Amino acid sequence: METFADRLQGLTALRGRLCVGIDPHAATLASWGLADSAAGCERFARTLVAALGEQVAVFKPQSAFFEAHGSAGVAVLGRVLVDIAAQGALSILDVKRGDIGSTMQAYARAYLGAGELAADAVTLSPYLGFAALNPALELAAQNGKGVFVLARTSNPEGDALQQARTAAGSSVAQSIVDAATASNQQAGTPLVGLVVGATRADLGVDLSRFDGWILAPGIGFQGGSVAGLQTSFGTAYQRVLPSASREIAAAGDDVARLRSRASGLALYN
Amino acid sequence: METFADRLQGLTALRGRLCVGIDPHAATLASWGLADSAAGCERFARTLVAALGEQVAVFKPQSAFFEAHGSAGVAVLGRVLVDIAAQGALSILDVKRGDIGSTMQAYARAYLGAGELAADAVTLSPYLGFAALNPALELAAQNGKGVFVLARTSNPEGDALQQARTAAGSSVAQSIVDAATASNQQAGTPLVGLVVGATRADLGVDLSRFDGWILAPGIGFQGGSVAGLQTSFGTAYQRVLPSASREIAAAGDDVARLRSRASGLALYN
Repeated sequence: METFADRLQGLTALRGRLCVGIDPHAATLASWGLADSAAGCERFARTLVAALGEQVAVFKPQSAFFEAHGSAGVAVLGRVLVDIAAQGALSILDVKRGDIGSTMQAYARAYLGAGELAADAVTLSPYLGFAALNPALELAAQNGKGVFVLARTSNPEGDALQQARTAAGSSVAQSIVDAATASNQQAGTPLVGLVVGATRADLGVDLSRFDGWILAPGIGFQGGSVAGLQTSFGTAYQRVLPSASREIAAAGDDVARLRSRASGLALYN
Repeated sequence: METFADRLQGLTALRGRLCVGIDPHAATLASWGLADSAAGCERFARTLVAALGEQVAVFKPQSAFFEAHGSAGVAVLGRVLVDIAAQGALSILDVKRGDIGSTMQAYARAYLGAGELAADAVTLSPYLGFAALNPALELAAQNGKGVFVLARTSNPEGDALQQARTAAGSSVAQSIVDAATASNQQAGTPLVGLVVGATRADLGVDLSRFDGWILAPGIGFQGGSVAGLQTSFGTAYQRVLPSASREIAAAGDDVARLRSRASGLALYN
């Protein structure tokens, strides 16, 4: 079975590395003339995927905006994931789940299995420890899927925790990078990706030994720029997936304008 | 409007402080003769709530086990939350969400608003920083609801991160305790609760200044005991909600046995 990392490699070579975030929040829906409802989310998300699904390699639906509409919103999310796959693109479902034991297994089953909400990859949050995420890593490996573990985020509120020093002497953020690196070395394949915020010039983590993919949210309205990525990510630059949401959705409900926005952010080199 | 902390105080004075976890995982469903499906989850969860809903103060549904069954599972979760409220009990929905900005607002809206998945309180995960959780704290305060932020968990994989030292000199876990303490002082009410694992004799955090509620998972099958809580939690003991799931579900689909199990774990003093 082809790994997620290989699928990503192949598809981004063809389509570029831009990841289009799907964030149907109230203000965006209003700007598209849509209701702040499950139906509005569905129209927004499926329009975006229909417009860009053959052009971009990766979509990142933000689960929170679908969960906000209850089970109907979650059902919409399932249909959006099907659309993404049908267009030949990959999905990274942004859920930031993190738990232990059988609960972590249940999250893995929900999002990395074969059910209604199955994505190609998910984001994970490591407050309970990197190793607690193993059930998700194992199911991802079995199913040719991927995970992106939060390492360094761009919001200032995260600094105190992510820069705290572990007993081994590194920062918490670096300890996640190192655990991901070790996990990939042991697996012999870059199964584990990382989430590293793209809005800082100095990332605050050393990615030079990390061989996996890096999801970098925050392009556009959050202050990061595609041009700045090469400087900040250094040797890891060619495995960076910059993610933009509002920057693209701001084009409105117009296929040509959406495609043009996404083309403007495409990243091949 | 009565605060969540006050509601919890009033109800636990009458019913005791045991929190019954609702964890419909495959093995438990099988032991009840139920299918590992949304329908099986529904039968399990609603039977548990019907049996214990007038006896215990708090239920803690674990969202992961419902999410594993897709939107149908999430719809079941909504009905279980309605059942809990209808029985006069309180719900702490274990979702461990944590994000930033408008995404955190969307999670708050999903679980602390008035929609299908509205609970009385939720668990939150602070990898992106305690302050990033503010949108949830704000909505909880507005709506008379509560939050329980992960501080110190009982799984060994969490040690490296939770014991890392912040620039201010405390552990990450203690920094969450201190941020929660400061937040409650500023609010003038114990809005913020904490999650602190109950399976350690030495908790590894100083709770002596913290005035909020403490959710303590891990009673029973995970190794903690109700008897050990007074020793480990010290002066905070009377605000500890010990949570048990498998320990109670192991009684099987029999109302009298379920009630007897829950009575055996009741905690009034």
